[in-house]
Amino acid sequence: MKTRLFTPGPVEIPIRILRALSQPPPHHRTDAFRDVLRRVTTDLKALHKTEGEVFLLGATGTGAMEAAVVNLMAPGAKALAVNGGKFGERWVRLLETYGVPHEVLDVEWGHAVDPAAIEERLAKDEALAVVFATHSETSTGALNDLQAIAAITRAQGRRLVVDAVTSLAVHPLEQDAWGVDVVVCGSQKGLMLPPGIATVSLAPWAADAIEGERLPRFYFDLRRARKALPNGETPWTPPVSHVLALEEALTMILREEGLGRVQDRHRRLAFAMRAGGEALGLRLFPANPSHAVTAFLPPEGVEATALVKRLRDRHGMIVAGGQDQLKGRILRIGHMGAYDLADLHALIGAIDKCLAFLAPDSPRSSGDAMGAASRAWDTA
Amino acid sequence: MKTRLFTPGPVEIPIRILRALSQPPPHHRTDAFRDVLRRVTTDLKALHKTEGEVFLLGATGTGAMEAAVVNLMAPGAKALAVNGGKFGERWVRLLETYGVPHEVLDVEWGHAVDPAAIEERLAKDEALAVVFATHSETSTGALNDLQAIAAITRAQGRRLVVDAVTSLAVHPLEQDAWGVDVVVCGSQKGLMLPPGIATVSLAPWAADAIEGERLPRFYFDLRRARKALPNGETPWTPPVSHVLALEEALTMILREEGLGRVQDRHRRLAFAMRAGGEALGLRLFPANPSHAVTAFLPPEGVEATALVKRLRDRHGMIVAGGQDQLKGRILRIGHMGAYDLADLHALIGAIDKCLAFLAPDSPRSSGDAMGAASRAWDTA
Repeated sequence: MKTRLFTPGPVEIPIRILRALSQPPPHHRTDAFRDVLRRVTTDLKALHKTEGEVFLLGATGTGAMEAAVVNLMAPGAKALAVNGGKFGERWVRLLETYGVPHEVLDVEWGHAVDPAAIEERLAKDEALAVVFATHSETSTGALNDLQAIAAITRAQGRRLVVDAVTSLAVHPLEQDAWGVDVVVCGSQKGLMLPPGIATVSLAPWAADAIEGERLPRFYFDLRRARKALPNGETPWTPPVSHVLALEEALTMILREEGLGRVQDRHRRLAFAMRAGGEALGLRLFPANPSHAVTAFLPPEGVEATALVKRLRDRHGMIVAGGQDQLKGRILRIGHMGAYDLADLHALIGAIDKCLAFLAPDSPRSSGDAMGAASRAWDTA
Repeated sequence: MKTRLFTPGPVEIPIRILRALSQPPPHHRTDAFRDVLRRVTTDLKALHKTEGEVFLLGATGTGAMEAAVVNLMAPGAKALAVNGGKFGERWVRLLETYGVPHEVLDVEWGHAVDPAAIEERLAKDEALAVVFATHSETSTGALNDLQAIAAITRAQGRRLVVDAVTSLAVHPLEQDAWGVDVVVCGSQKGLMLPPGIATVSLAPWAADAIEGERLPRFYFDLRRARKALPNGETPWTPPVSHVLALEEALTMILREEGLGRVQDRHRRLAFAMRAGGEALGLRLFPANPSHAVTAFLPPEGVEATALVKRLRDRHGMIVAGGQDQLKGRILRIGHMGAYDLADLHALIGAIDKCLAFLAPDSPRSSGDAMGAASRAWDTA
């Protein structure tokens, strides 16, 4: 059976990226590799829309989140974490782990944070030096209004650190223009790579954010990365094969399809998936949905877990279920990276067949759902 | 020009491992991948000769070293670091970074540590709870007598953590039989992979070493790894492509060539390289040389840097120079992984040609050097 990934990361990897990954890699202390590292870094700045710095880490997104915490937080400094899902919660756990004094702004799962709520919390406590937030919350499929959040943190003179793991190369993200101090990202989402490399970017005005006494940092010490980068190097041996693959992915995104078109395609994919799913009786879960992952409640009378399992076992289509408090309640469909309408048609057809078995009495037709997806794709 | 890596990591990667790396990877939360992860973990235990646990990290060897420090050290507990090179020094830097009270046993670069010196330091201070040491010191090419060191730490009831980054799958390393509590390793050395995945293993009696209050740990928290592993999972998304490549490498090492034969081949490679180099007038640098990397002083009157550069520019042969206090003084030749006598013959021939240019008056003949290498290979 053919397998198709519709998971919110890792995602399907284009064959040419797999091919780039499997090149005999050059040694990392050679000019050939230094050139690659410099090109990739320049391209990553274009992707983030920042004139600042982008550092590569041999880690996954969680490692990049930890890097942001230990490099930004001075001992005793206070943070605000916005927690509206499993990845918002990860900021909280990181702050707890390092004993960082912090407050948590809890947001109902599936909802975007109200920027005014952040504004209020910051106004009440001037000690809240750094805000940790999530752009696209992968666990609920909700999108936060990053531009509005950044406007507030800038106005109030606080640092903003954003987990953009599932939004970079999917949603518009203008680091410098919007005023986002720090952005962290992983590789196995919009960048279409296998997991194993992550990024942390600093806006130009945030260069000093990592200097001075901070939490203990060694492998993730960005000052070392800063020192090595002008030479086209990283402080530790980088995951060289991933860097070669990243170069290929950035070529596809920036120089072939073009970033604007890539983001537009993701928007149309999201609209198509919502329309197709809703035509099948699925109910969109989040209030303000992301273009990276579409989270659905199943039709009444259908178990989300049964639908996920049947899609996998009968059709080779891997979608994700819910996590933690959403376990067994939702399904999450990832469409980050190299997906197109035809991929979604294939998935919608399979969901339809699953529902015909799991809920034979519900009214639904795959023709309708595919048509709905097509129309949404065209008009989105 | 054809390029050949003789660096002490990253090493030449066999094409079949590159091919494994470039498979479309399965999603990590599927039974197919869980089976791979379990097999790889079982194989890694066979490689370490431990009945304990081996955990995979999405990081390089330095990340695994950091993982060992933060998971082993309780706040306030004291450590002893053995420092005989750049990687011994890395233990010291890590302990400093985390504010761990520690002593340093300094060893002259190029020499193995005298196990009696460790014994003496431990006897003098019962508070030294954990010893951090290096098996094969990549920066000097020296090998430490791990078995003797472990006998001392076991007898004195201290923990022993060993950096085996360039010794695993190269030198015999019997974690359980010798009594080594913790072993850390990276992927781009004897395991023949690109950098990007690392391991930490715990001997069966050391299972409790990571439990209880320790230094702050999140991405590198081995308790999370322990909890996930029985389900064939990792706490964070693993570098899936590297895991597939690792499976292939372990098949080659354990089931095809066989671990004993692999180690024997490395011993013969080291003897051949030493004999060939010495026949060309190179002088072996370390007192107790490792089989992973051969460090030479250049012949009198030849600059190490000029030799490294000429090998690279004229012959496409990449060897490493010295680091820090050895910068410009030595050359380091890596022969970990898929190397054979023919590879060394190729390198020796190129060194000979370089020396003919750099030191035309010195007596030397490539036929002699190659013959010397061949004879050492046969009789080692």
